[in-house]
Amino acid sequence: MKLKLTRLNDQLAFQAANEDGQQIRIDASAAAGGQGLGMRPMEILASSLASCASIDVLLILKKKRIALEAYEVHVSAVRKEAVPAVFETIHLEFVVAGTDPLEEVGKAVKLSVEKYCSVAGSLHPEIKITYEVRQEKRYE
Amino acid sequence: MKLKLTRLNDQLAFQAANEDGQQIRIDASAAAGGQGLGMRPMEILASSLASCASIDVLLILKKKRIALEAYEVHVSAVRKEAVPAVFETIHLEFVVAGTDPLEEVGKAVKLSVEKYCSVAGSLHPEIKITYEVRQEKRYE
Repeated sequence: MKLKLTRLNDQLAFQAANEDGQQIRIDASAAAGGQGLGMRPMEILASSLASCASIDVLLILKKKRIALEAYEVHVSAVRKEAVPAVFETIHLEFVVAGTDPLEEVGKAVKLSVEKYCSVAGSLHPEIKITYEVRQEKRYE
Repeated sequence: MKLKLTRLNDQLAFQAANEDGQQIRIDASAAAGGQGLGMRPMEILASSLASCASIDVLLILKKKRIALEAYEVHVSAVRKEAVPAVFETIHLEFVVAGTDPLEEVGKAVKLSVEKYCSVAGSLHPEIKITYEVRQEKRYE
């Protein structure tokens, strides 16, 4: 894998690009001198986990021919008050709607976080990754 | 920290957003069914490391009043051929130009990766993070 990180300005904002030209923008916190031009590196890291798990979950459900009417993930992460301010916990709340998806989504999430997801496997083992699945109410 | 991950389509593309509305787009690999609508989760993860280290490096150089005429980071990462396909190595090549920046940038990178960078501290200790600093040739 090859990526290039370039500066967006003379401050602390960056663009990361892969070899296909896909890009993301990253900026420091306001406290460190960032100007709100992108997500912060630790937010980017947590996003990589949520998306990695989601790809697994949606592929597993697709194989089982389980359709979802809605899907999103709410991420809440807590960092240590120390230097470095590493993650202590990352909680993933999967909010789904469909025909009784709770059990199947729960199984898929468990498989992803514990077995398949390359991002989860690349994180420090002391980071506690927790998850829950919540059925969204739908107005019909 | 709170983030929300939503689907961009009925395939495997997502948008992650922080509470300030900053966003990134993420997609699966083509092999898994992605359609090239964003960077892949493991690329996002490697980008978080390169940007975290870069914020530290630029802040350290700023404190020392060392000006850079150019700055970019080339990331090369190798994943295990296994499930999960975790990172084995992440190599960061800092390409800089300025008045003799090599030694000072090298010191700053070392401090960041070994001490300050929260992303580096959140990665699995078995991932080997290496770095080098290269002086860019400038035409004057």
